[in-house]
Amino acid sequence: MTPLPIPTLSETSTALCFVLILLVPLAGAGVALINTGLGRSRSAAHSMMTSLVVIAIAALVYFACGFSWQGSVGRPAHFFTIGHAGWNWIAAESFFMRGLALDGSPASLTVLLQLFSVGLAVLIPVGAGAERWRLGAICASTALLAGLTYPLFAHWVWGGGWLAQLGTNYGLGRGFVDASGSSTIQVVGGLTALSIAWILNPRRGKYSAQGMPAAIPAHNVVFVIFGCVLGLVGWLGLNSAGALLFVGVGVERVVLIAVNTILAAASGGLTAAIVTRLRFGKPDASLTAGALVVFAIEWLEFKLKVDDPGGAIAVHTVGGIWGILAVGLFAQIPGENAGQLLAQIVGVAALVGFVLPMTYGLNWLLNHFHQQRVAVDGERQGMDLHELGAEAYPEFVIHSEEFIPR
Amino acid sequence: MTPLPIPTLSETSTALCFVLILLVPLAGAGVALINTGLGRSRSAAHSMMTSLVVIAIAALVYFACGFSWQGSVGRPAHFFTIGHAGWNWIAAESFFMRGLALDGSPASLTVLLQLFSVGLAVLIPVGAGAERWRLGAICASTALLAGLTYPLFAHWVWGGGWLAQLGTNYGLGRGFVDASGSSTIQVVGGLTALSIAWILNPRRGKYSAQGMPAAIPAHNVVFVIFGCVLGLVGWLGLNSAGALLFVGVGVERVVLIAVNTILAAASGGLTAAIVTRLRFGKPDASLTAGALVVFAIEWLEFKLKVDDPGGAIAVHTVGGIWGILAVGLFAQIPGENAGQLLAQIVGVAALVGFVLPMTYGLNWLLNHFHQQRVAVDGERQGMDLHELGAEAYPEFVIHSEEFIPR
Amino acid sequence: MTPLPIPTLSETSTALCFVLILLVPLAGAGVALINTGLGRSRSAAHSMMTSLVVIAIAALVYFACGFSWQGSVGRPAHFFTIGHAGWNWIAAESFFMRGLALDGSPASLTVLLQLFSVGLAVLIPVGAGAERWRLGAICASTALLAGLTYPLFAHWVWGGGWLAQLGTNYGLGRGFVDASGSSTIQVVGGLTALSIAWILNPRRGKYSAQGMPAAIPAHNVVFVIFGCVLGLVGWLGLNSAGALLFVGVGVERVVLIAVNTILAAASGGLTAAIVTRLRFGKPDASLTAGALVVFAIEWLEFKLKVDDPGGAIAVHTVGGIWGILAVGLFAQIPGENAGQLLAQIVGVAALVGFVLPMTYGLNWLLNHFHQQRVAVDGERQGMDLHELGAEAYPEFVIHSEEFIPR
Repeated sequence: MTPLPIPTLSETSTALCFVLILLVPLAGAGVALINTGLGRSRSAAHSMMTSLVVIAIAALVYFACGFSWQGSVGRPAHFFTIGHAGWNWIAAESFFMRGLALDGSPASLTVLLQLFSVGLAVLIPVGAGAERWRLGAICASTALLAGLTYPLFAHWVWGGGWLAQLGTNYGLGRGFVDASGSSTIQVVGGLTALSIAWILNPRRGKYSAQGMPAAIPAHNVVFVIFGCVLGLVGWLGLNSAGALLFVGVGVERVVLIAVNTILAAASGGLTAAIVTRLRFGKPDASLTAGALVVFAIEWLEFKLKVDDPGGAIAVHTVGGIWGILAVGLFAQIPGENAGQLLAQIVGVAALVGFVLPMTYGLNWLLNHFHQQRVAVDGERQGMDLHELGAEAYPEFVIHSEEFIPR
Repeated sequence: MTPLPIPTLSETSTALCFVLILLVPLAGAGVALINTGLGRSRSAAHSMMTSLVVIAIAALVYFACGFSWQGSVGRPAHFFTIGHAGWNWIAAESFFMRGLALDGSPASLTVLLQLFSVGLAVLIPVGAGAERWRLGAICASTALLAGLTYPLFAHWVWGGGWLAQLGTNYGLGRGFVDASGSSTIQVVGGLTALSIAWILNPRRGKYSAQGMPAAIPAHNVVFVIFGCVLGLVGWLGLNSAGALLFVGVGVERVVLIAVNTILAAASGGLTAAIVTRLRFGKPDASLTAGALVVFAIEWLEFKLKVDDPGGAIAVHTVGGIWGILAVGLFAQIPGENAGQLLAQIVGVAALVGFVLPMTYGLNWLLNHFHQQRVAVDGERQGMDLHELGAEAYPEFVIHSEEFIPR
Repeated sequence: MTPLPIPTLSETSTALCFVLILLVPLAGAGVALINTGLGRSRSAAHSMMTSLVVIAIAALVYFACGFSWQGSVGRPAHFFTIGHAGWNWIAAESFFMRGLALDGSPASLTVLLQLFSVGLAVLIPVGAGAERWRLGAICASTALLAGLTYPLFAHWVWGGGWLAQLGTNYGLGRGFVDASGSSTIQVVGGLTALSIAWILNPRRGKYSAQGMPAAIPAHNVVFVIFGCVLGLVGWLGLNSAGALLFVGVGVERVVLIAVNTILAAASGGLTAAIVTRLRFGKPDASLTAGALVVFAIEWLEFKLKVDDPGGAIAVHTVGGIWGILAVGLFAQIPGENAGQLLAQIVGVAALVGFVLPMTYGLNWLLNHFHQQRVAVDGERQGMDLHELGAEAYPEFVIHSEEFIPR
């Protein structure tokens, strides 16, 4: 049983990490605007309010019980033994974060970061279920994701769990590495989004009788692109804070991280514009997330018949898995990269082989007790009128029969 | 005469505090969007422009004379004596901040924070007077609030004034404590908002001949909810910076403050959704500020016949007073809490018994010399066309007779 | 050959500078919203997408070759000799930033700041060319600005080049000083904007046959004013980070810088409101940038017949030149100010006499190989439909013949 080293932070690193974490909610605001802008105006207030509600529920549920499963490196956890190695599979913290001093320690900063990043993870399914997912069901599903699925996997990665131990126990590089949430936030959220899209089925009018998908245009492209820029600021904070907390880098290394984040975002956005230009004749303004994502969206929409209004599955699942594997392919690990790549592949296998069935199963069960999809009438009226009794833009005149027959 | 201790900040605390303060204008941007979104489209440009103008006037007036009344702990002030105790009632600084070195000292950081937080305070009445308050009168009223009312009360609380001295002079806990502006920003702003709403009277069409209030829906719910998230980021900065500056906590304590802020915001937003759902059948997307606020809005609108389009009075006054009292009820003060609670009650009494008459009186006087309410024609046209000569959304088709007969 | 001193930063300064730089993209988001809101709805998606694309191209081109011309103080550069003085005219760095360790050094922080501030510079011409500049041409023009013009001038100022050497070589104060980008970002961007506006000619319908300009109103004033507040946050970051990096001030000085930034912004915004009120009878909500700018816009629009939808030339060129000269007029330089003022004037001369012809020439050449202005049909349809094949707000009903006959 080889415990992983506990990171320590200088006072400067602590202060820096704190401020960087406070930038993360800007990413949440950005994702909320992206989801809302990509949907139709008849569901815009619902989309924004849902975003706010799931962020709030995620923080409260994570505080109440999520952290007790996730924990932090070097703190109490349950182990099981295979051969001579002790494997850490779940934390053993008290509920309501009792026993954790919020004293500026790395563990306390991790908790602060988690309160926001669990909010980012639960926003991802909201994008995929847009315009047909009932508010009550969203709340229940969010509680399951923030209170169970997310913290369990996050423990494995960030809490010193078995994926992180692959290095010390089996010599696979430094163990599974995820410094900025590509697995815990993006893929866990993205696989839940996939489950939700499967369970909800496509929006009315998305597929013709022949199975051809219709394009349902974004109702406000300005919100979408503005949301991307806000998201960048949040992600700069998230990536830098994650590196300080989970990789133990010093203040001087965050510059490299920020430069890489900017160049990656710039390349991804530009590639998406070029690829959509080449394939469809014009660049697509609502698609700014990289070449892989463009192809993934086509594959999901045409082949799998998955209706994902926010593009959440393609962006977060496919992009996230690529991010996980890229660590194994490109990271400069002392020694050799084969072990690291293997550790990353084990992580992807755990996501697809364990997290996907778990999150699908939980939401499938939920759907049995509490119908997740809104009634037909609700979809016709729009979620705003149906579930909130008020429209997002009551004074503006909207095309009465826009795009999709109500 | 027992002067209060002067806080000192390490270089790291100074840098941290500085950056946290720079996040505060995001709260101003958020409040501006909330006010604008909650109003009608015919006054949206007026609402945004007014917000920018009052923030600018507040900063300039505070710089010119506000700081000279507010001062900072340990700096020159006027005292009067009751029994053997010297009571500090107003600062004695030069105008235009002469004599204050902007050198990174706690006093200079306080000034920087004040330039923004006085801007938050003056935004609150803008919400209550929306759609009928003339720009010229807004400017004059803002100058009175930022140049006189706010700095006077802020001196009592943050400048080492008599409310802060209640601890050392009378043994009431640590004296009146307000680390994040619930009294100086929220209640002082909120009571001014109440005065303005009284002086202006309700909007045309808000109340029927029988005195029943009509619901005038928010023209853009997306702005409202997005503004809430921006506001959260700003408030995280404000609360953390305030604790560093006014309570003298170290870098390691701000994590606790941020976690509490997040959990409080999450609980408030969620409770409002649940309470509106229970009372009105559907959750209200434009109301995300806690259970107390929901009841306060009903009480103001149905009983007091106060028309407050931005919900500013309920949110800031009622929420702020609760925040002041909560310190006395829940804070862990060495010794006992009764004295602290008494100090907090004295503070509330000073707000209701002194600040409310003062701010009402000043605005009542102003109204005599310079009519605060716009002419009837202006309300019919909308503030945008009437006062700015241009609409916020000139290309969009708006329902010509929306909700309220023009 | 007297090399300029290389600044050093404490760990705290490094961390502070890093976070301040991360606020800069908020200025980019703000400028994008301002440009978009000031244009017409038929080109709003194009405006936002263009903003994202130019920021991305600027970062990538700057990374690929821009930095190799700009460099940083104390790093390899090419010199020529006049008399006995060695003049540094261009950096001699490798492409793709090879040879530069992104290790938290001042040079690495400078690079991070540049990746964002070159993005601000390239946004300025986007405002001036709005509603008639083709996306392909924008990309090419951006690459020239970010890859050549900007880094060359920035080397002279921030990279220890000949303008910065005017102090050590000729005794002109501290040499040309620009701590927050008034020359490199604002004027270089603004002169490029002027070149673009000249090359593109006015929008259809902007000028009558008699040469009288028509007012084409902003399509969303809320975006414009919200963008201003976001811009303020970004500029607070930029000014503070620039002072730490380029002037070598300590943490304790940034408070003064922030206070000055706020007071300057407040005065500028208020003055613009007062001046427009006095001249046009009503304050202009879309104009919040100072008195000089109001007159500059009139002069450009009525006398020079330059159509600049985003007001970019007046704001950035005129405001920027005033900023450069103000350093010479008001800065407290040990000794006397005459030399400093002379250095600043030399800088303005270099901008007008060298940068303007260079950037005009490059864009004029580009226009020969690749028509920069969109076809007449595109302007009639709007850039959104013509170049992106989708509208920004497809569900909202827009006045079909708004303002300008299509």
